[in-house]
Amino acid sequence: MNSQTPPQTNPPAPIAPLNKGLGFTAHAIQRANIAALGWNLLREDLSLPSAVLCEDKLLHNLNWMQQFITAYGVKLAPHGKTTMAPRLFDLQLQGGAWGITLATAHQTLVAYTHGVRRILMANQLVGKENMAIIGRLLRDPEFEFYSLVDSAEQIAQLGAFYSKQSQRLRVLLELGVAGGRAGVRNEEQLQSVLAALSRWSGSIALRGIEIYEGVLDNEASIRTFLQHAVAVTRRLAAEKRFDSEPILLSGAGSAWYDVVADVFSAANFGDSVEIVLRHGCYLTHDIGAYRHAQASILERNPIARRMSSSLLPALQVWAYVQSVPEPDKAIIAMGKRDAAFDSGMPVPALHFRPGDLAPRAAPEHWLVTKMMDQHAYLQMTANDDLRVGDMIGFDISHPCLTFDKWRTLPVLNIQFDVVDIVDTFF
Amino acid sequence: MNSQTPPQTNPPAPIAPLNKGLGFTAHAIQRANIAALGWNLLREDLSLPSAVLCEDKLLHNLNWMQQFITAYGVKLAPHGKTTMAPRLFDLQLQGGAWGITLATAHQTLVAYTHGVRRILMANQLVGKENMAIIGRLLRDPEFEFYSLVDSAEQIAQLGAFYSKQSQRLRVLLELGVAGGRAGVRNEEQLQSVLAALSRWSGSIALRGIEIYEGVLDNEASIRTFLQHAVAVTRRLAAEKRFDSEPILLSGAGSAWYDVVADVFSAANFGDSVEIVLRHGCYLTHDIGAYRHAQASILERNPIARRMSSSLLPALQVWAYVQSVPEPDKAIIAMGKRDAAFDSGMPVPALHFRPGDLAPRAAPEHWLVTKMMDQHAYLQMTANDDLRVGDMIGFDISHPCLTFDKWRTLPVLNIQFDVVDIVDTFF
Repeated sequence: MNSQTPPQTNPPAPIAPLNKGLGFTAHAIQRANIAALGWNLLREDLSLPSAVLCEDKLLHNLNWMQQFITAYGVKLAPHGKTTMAPRLFDLQLQGGAWGITLATAHQTLVAYTHGVRRILMANQLVGKENMAIIGRLLRDPEFEFYSLVDSAEQIAQLGAFYSKQSQRLRVLLELGVAGGRAGVRNEEQLQSVLAALSRWSGSIALRGIEIYEGVLDNEASIRTFLQHAVAVTRRLAAEKRFDSEPILLSGAGSAWYDVVADVFSAANFGDSVEIVLRHGCYLTHDIGAYRHAQASILERNPIARRMSSSLLPALQVWAYVQSVPEPDKAIIAMGKRDAAFDSGMPVPALHFRPGDLAPRAAPEHWLVTKMMDQHAYLQMTANDDLRVGDMIGFDISHPCLTFDKWRTLPVLNIQFDVVDIVDTFF
Repeated sequence: MNSQTPPQTNPPAPIAPLNKGLGFTAHAIQRANIAALGWNLLREDLSLPSAVLCEDKLLHNLNWMQQFITAYGVKLAPHGKTTMAPRLFDLQLQGGAWGITLATAHQTLVAYTHGVRRILMANQLVGKENMAIIGRLLRDPEFEFYSLVDSAEQIAQLGAFYSKQSQRLRVLLELGVAGGRAGVRNEEQLQSVLAALSRWSGSIALRGIEIYEGVLDNEASIRTFLQHAVAVTRRLAAEKRFDSEPILLSGAGSAWYDVVADVFSAANFGDSVEIVLRHGCYLTHDIGAYRHAQASILERNPIARRMSSSLLPALQVWAYVQSVPEPDKAIIAMGKRDAAFDSGMPVPALHFRPGDLAPRAAPEHWLVTKMMDQHAYLQMTANDDLRVGDMIGFDISHPCLTFDKWRTLPVLNIQFDVVDIVDTFF
């Protein structure tokens, strides 16, 4: 690549045999040849622990969300930071996503390199090399990129960088709330940002408004915040502050996307405003915070309620029982290196003894009480039939912090055959 | 590789330009050419956040520990699960380490593939493909491998597998404590394991005794546990239960290695027993649990006290201030994806404003109060001079769960030049 041309799109790299959670292969293999290896989880062909994706549930979730989004007539740019798996970005884009949301310049580079051409970086772009990464990608006229601004200082730094490159960066203004994360809190900050945008209009183009409502924790305050975003959008549109139309209006983490869809679509902006939601955890879902959030969505949202199903947990971590040193305690060969632990411990879902025909549902009283780097403590009762060498499939809470512990995740069909591999780029 | 020959040692792979925390390079580069790229952290050549290793402190820690170990006349097999960085395994082996400790079959495969030929897997080996991984490596007669046993069931599974392969696996018997992790708790379990070892003596060779004292939290109970391990070693040696000499006696996580060295060496076994310590966090150290533990070691251990220095934190995560939305709060572009958070939050150590000559010490009242996937909240006071675009170098707590968030870590000299890259294999 010469310094004046944008980076090329890479062909998919072969699967490296040194990643954990895979089966045996003497050489790096192309993804197209994975299914032919004939790996099966229940035949113990994988080196456990292994994080696996259930193909049918993944596709179910993909379709469920696309239906929901379509019903509201809004766009979806799923947050790619959850999985950082270009193979899943492809699936989401083919399933109708408007673009992919990401959190950093590095993540943007990964997605671009794998063919994604519309990216909303829902974050402030800061730092010389991070700006340079985006600058190199912007040499591709096909590449559509948005990032956030929330201070005059940051705009001045972006303006100085991109004016030198004779490039123009599209930005969304982030609105925030007191006690929250980034984003403009008040009128004084807003005026300061608008003034900076005027000063740097040659290199910075204001294209919309962005919020992250997930810093709030109740529906009433979230609705107020969303209404504020709608009002600011109307006002800045009336003041002709936006560089062009359609104006983007974006919100939504994975817990309140229905309320965001509801309030933003009820504003009836018409074609002048494009509403972009950004939730990312729906694709694998979980059995912790997001299952809880989804239950609330089904309760309060009429469109979700009319749909005949809901999201399903599509990501599991499988591991062996390595020791049963006390009658009511098993030690599992799975640790903080393998599954998220910050938002609830992994939950035993399936129990399989090698040689059996099929896994059984794990008893509900089996409980992970502690995790160390490479181990989990499972509490059971003394007469439970659990042995060294048994396999347990754990549902997890917080997919983001589970994906980032794996470089390759086998995709399983309902017979537990490995039909594909998803690789991640963290 | 054909199925009858062991895997080959790989030449170092080139550094992939898609990993986070690096500078710009159009193509994958060989590690030998890294320094020639001229990347410097303070010139903002790296895409932050970036986890960096301080070369001088790393070498200091390496030497400190080798001196300590030598003073006790024991062996060190540093726990490689901490870093999973073959480049650092090399450094430890060249610095005098007896071997490398690891936690899983996958980790063993990674180390073997990078040239390590003596590995203590301080864990129960369980599962068909995991046993197969080790079986393939054992075809190399130069490969010396030990793993743990603690139940008759597990020994029977290992015995059945390796007898079919006509291979013999060297094992250490793990002793445990009530309420702890794995390991034999009582005489009944011990007899059951010894009987299983007799049954499977053709394919399983008992070579020593292992404990992990880190499941206990006070010196008195740890000394009692260590004395128990010494007594069991003596008794099984007298009963001729070990397959050959020297017998291995192994213990030590990163918090109590001095007590382990003290008790085990005071047993005066002579040449018939080789004492192997396994602590792994000393190489990078930290400013959390391990700084605290090391302070206790300096207090109670005469040899550590006589040494003119102690361990130094050699791993930092650098990140940008992306927003200062409230006078006493900055949002940092570094999250749970970038630094451990389970044993204390990252601590601001250095503050650098691009263009300045050198970083300054960060004020002690700067405090990370919250971390999200990609962000940290920094609490400060309203008149602190901290701006968007400033860089902060964070010391971290718990190196293991920081290393596993990075595929490549730049190594810096004291001028903050990138002089090497360490890649990890998680």
